[in-house]
Amino acid sequence: MATVTDRESLLTMGQVAQKAARQLARHSEEAKNQALANIADLLECEQGPILEANLVDCEAAMASGMDEAMLDRLLLNSERLTGMANDVRTIAALPDPIGEVIEARTLPNGLEVERRRVPLGVIGSIYESRPNVTIDIAALTLKSGNACLLRGGRESLHSNLALVGLLRRAIGEAGINPDTVQYVDNPDRALVDELLQMKDYIDLLVPRGGQGLINSVAANAAMPVVAGGVGVCHAYVDRSADLGKAASIIFNAKVQRPTVCNALDTVLLHAEVAPNCLPDIARELSGAGVELHCDHRSLSILGPESGLNTRPADEDDWGREFLSLTAAIKIVDSLDEALEHIETYGNGHTEAIITSDAAASQRFQLEVDAAAVIVNASTRFTDGGQLGLGAEVGISTQKFHARGPLGLRELTSYKWVMIGDGHVRE
Amino acid sequence: MATVTDRESLLTMGQVAQKAARQLARHSEEAKNQALANIADLLECEQGPILEANLVDCEAAMASGMDEAMLDRLLLNSERLTGMANDVRTIAALPDPIGEVIEARTLPNGLEVERRRVPLGVIGSIYESRPNVTIDIAALTLKSGNACLLRGGRESLHSNLALVGLLRRAIGEAGINPDTVQYVDNPDRALVDELLQMKDYIDLLVPRGGQGLINSVAANAAMPVVAGGVGVCHAYVDRSADLGKAASIIFNAKVQRPTVCNALDTVLLHAEVAPNCLPDIARELSGAGVELHCDHRSLSILGPESGLNTRPADEDDWGREFLSLTAAIKIVDSLDEALEHIETYGNGHTEAIITSDAAASQRFQLEVDAAAVIVNASTRFTDGGQLGLGAEVGISTQKFHARGPLGLRELTSYKWVMIGDGHVRE
Repeated sequence: MATVTDRESLLTMGQVAQKAARQLARHSEEAKNQALANIADLLECEQGPILEANLVDCEAAMASGMDEAMLDRLLLNSERLTGMANDVRTIAALPDPIGEVIEARTLPNGLEVERRRVPLGVIGSIYESRPNVTIDIAALTLKSGNACLLRGGRESLHSNLALVGLLRRAIGEAGINPDTVQYVDNPDRALVDELLQMKDYIDLLVPRGGQGLINSVAANAAMPVVAGGVGVCHAYVDRSADLGKAASIIFNAKVQRPTVCNALDTVLLHAEVAPNCLPDIARELSGAGVELHCDHRSLSILGPESGLNTRPADEDDWGREFLSLTAAIKIVDSLDEALEHIETYGNGHTEAIITSDAAASQRFQLEVDAAAVIVNASTRFTDGGQLGLGAEVGISTQKFHARGPLGLRELTSYKWVMIGDGHVRE
Repeated sequence: MATVTDRESLLTMGQVAQKAARQLARHSEEAKNQALANIADLLECEQGPILEANLVDCEAAMASGMDEAMLDRLLLNSERLTGMANDVRTIAALPDPIGEVIEARTLPNGLEVERRRVPLGVIGSIYESRPNVTIDIAALTLKSGNACLLRGGRESLHSNLALVGLLRRAIGEAGINPDTVQYVDNPDRALVDELLQMKDYIDLLVPRGGQGLINSVAANAAMPVVAGGVGVCHAYVDRSADLGKAASIIFNAKVQRPTVCNALDTVLLHAEVAPNCLPDIARELSGAGVELHCDHRSLSILGPESGLNTRPADEDDWGREFLSLTAAIKIVDSLDEALEHIETYGNGHTEAIITSDAAASQRFQLEVDAAAVIVNASTRFTDGGQLGLGAEVGISTQKFHARGPLGLRELTSYKWVMIGDGHVRE
């Protein structure tokens, strides 16, 4: 694998990736699955060099004072590598999206027309110092017939080079061009700016990481970007709600995994039922360590000396993704007010209603403009694995191309194939 | 309708459009079809004011020396308005894409999951001085549940204002917010630059017009753009081809309508069959007024004194979209050489092979990376109407979101809807 030193060699990588993508488009499902099986086997059986490279990264990161959470994301160990191997096997077992006939028909003139699924081509990914993303993106792009051009955070360089070496070997041993996976190994930031302009070679860019990285990529990339990863999620308890279900859904949505984008942020309660259900909901959440940022009406229901972990909400709490054991709570007087609040403060990720009223459910499904609209279930279900997509590159909050969890199919395009017998147009 | 004077009022239009789009998403298919029927009726029955406004535009254009072809595109008359009315009725008769359940399943835990088609929201369109585009885009976006923000060429301002007035009246009379269609009536170019940055209000931008306009919009727009409209189309005559079919397909693809993007540009002929078929093909094309730009091998087959309309091809002829009665002709020695030529010079629109060899047909279908790959039929079939999409906004040569003809469905997104009964995630 060539080392990237400058703009020229980056363009060369783009050309090489495009060529590898065209070759990969012709390989069979079996060859791709063999490559994935090889990757999984090597991740389990040849961990030594990867763990050594990772140790170099981790020691340097510790010496430079990297914080605990980031260090944890950088760290690899035997168990994690085995977990990654299993994830790759899960991806291998998914149906191959490529070649799928999306629709087929014979026109009245006898021309046979098919819309057939094809790879996008070359997927670029820019991500933070999490070496597992290297395997994750490479496996998903390979299975979906795409080549990839990867650029991870500089703190993970040694780990990523070891992993990319493994990927290329595994892919080559399956008879596929190793250039299907390439890595930009120069940590110079200026090369990222170059990469963002390579729209002639990169068909889709997938940023993975914090909001700063994603915003910067989305704002500066010349090619399409699937941006996501941020969810400001609401749950609205309607006046017709089953209050027991409401309490368990809210608890699950907030507490089960608070650091992810489909975790609950704001609870909206109809004023008619809030006095009955808020004390129980607040007690359960508070007991699990959740800090409650309450509007004045919910504060007055809970009372000043409730012993709960409450404080008055301020304006910034509405529309905020907490990513922690924190929730905002607001009382509303109607479904309309809830819809208006969600329209104002939601970001189009996941919105839930708890209701027993079919009309309220219908209005919520129709009027809420979000990737996922959920009735009587936890916001945590917006997830590729949960929805049967198998694995996901991320969760898109945009409407173009793909919305919600991005699985293998969302990494594809299609072509129209027409078969005639000398057909000409009248 | 407000007049756009500055950036502020443009942003206000964006907000108004977004609100209208949210309202339109809740309207029934019947209301949308009623609005379309009203539009068609007014286009037929109230032509006076439109033709008067168009006369103002045409007189000013003539006085300023506008060329014939542009003037023809600007001109409206009674017959053209009636044609536009019929196009609107055709769109009204198409199935409503909105609300379609793209897939539905019940997860093992009982959670019901649907992917349901929804509008994109607000479609912006920037186009040249062709007033029929105003009706075309408005009708397609309305049927697909989207609001639109239109900006046509300055030479068509009076015509467009009359048409937009008609559209808004027809829409209002169907009980739908007239702000579903808005027009940027300030001809200041700087406002176009502002429009291109309004990604918070415009979900998709559709440029319609020449390559300069499309490239400029694609390069500068902050929101997604569906760019297309340029097709460098090849037809490859394989050594196994039925030469009679080859001749009629090539004639049709080149001559039937040479000014459109799916017209044939370059003919590639296998060296084994070229001596047998090229003279006939060249004679027919030449007889229809086609100028043939030939590589030296095809020239030598045709002979120096063939009496045909030939000249030697130069390098610029490969990869050129002629949009006229001109074709480039090249002899190749193999399918591989043809594929390589197409990969080098094609732009991913439409590529055809004429062959009787199943293996060659398969390779061509698999390896050519284009919106449409055609076997034994004319390139002219890459067309929304021909393919049963009913009507099209354009033909996309990009792979993201939609490829090939863009019909109603391609102006939509989807949402995930999940219905549970207190479901929480384990």
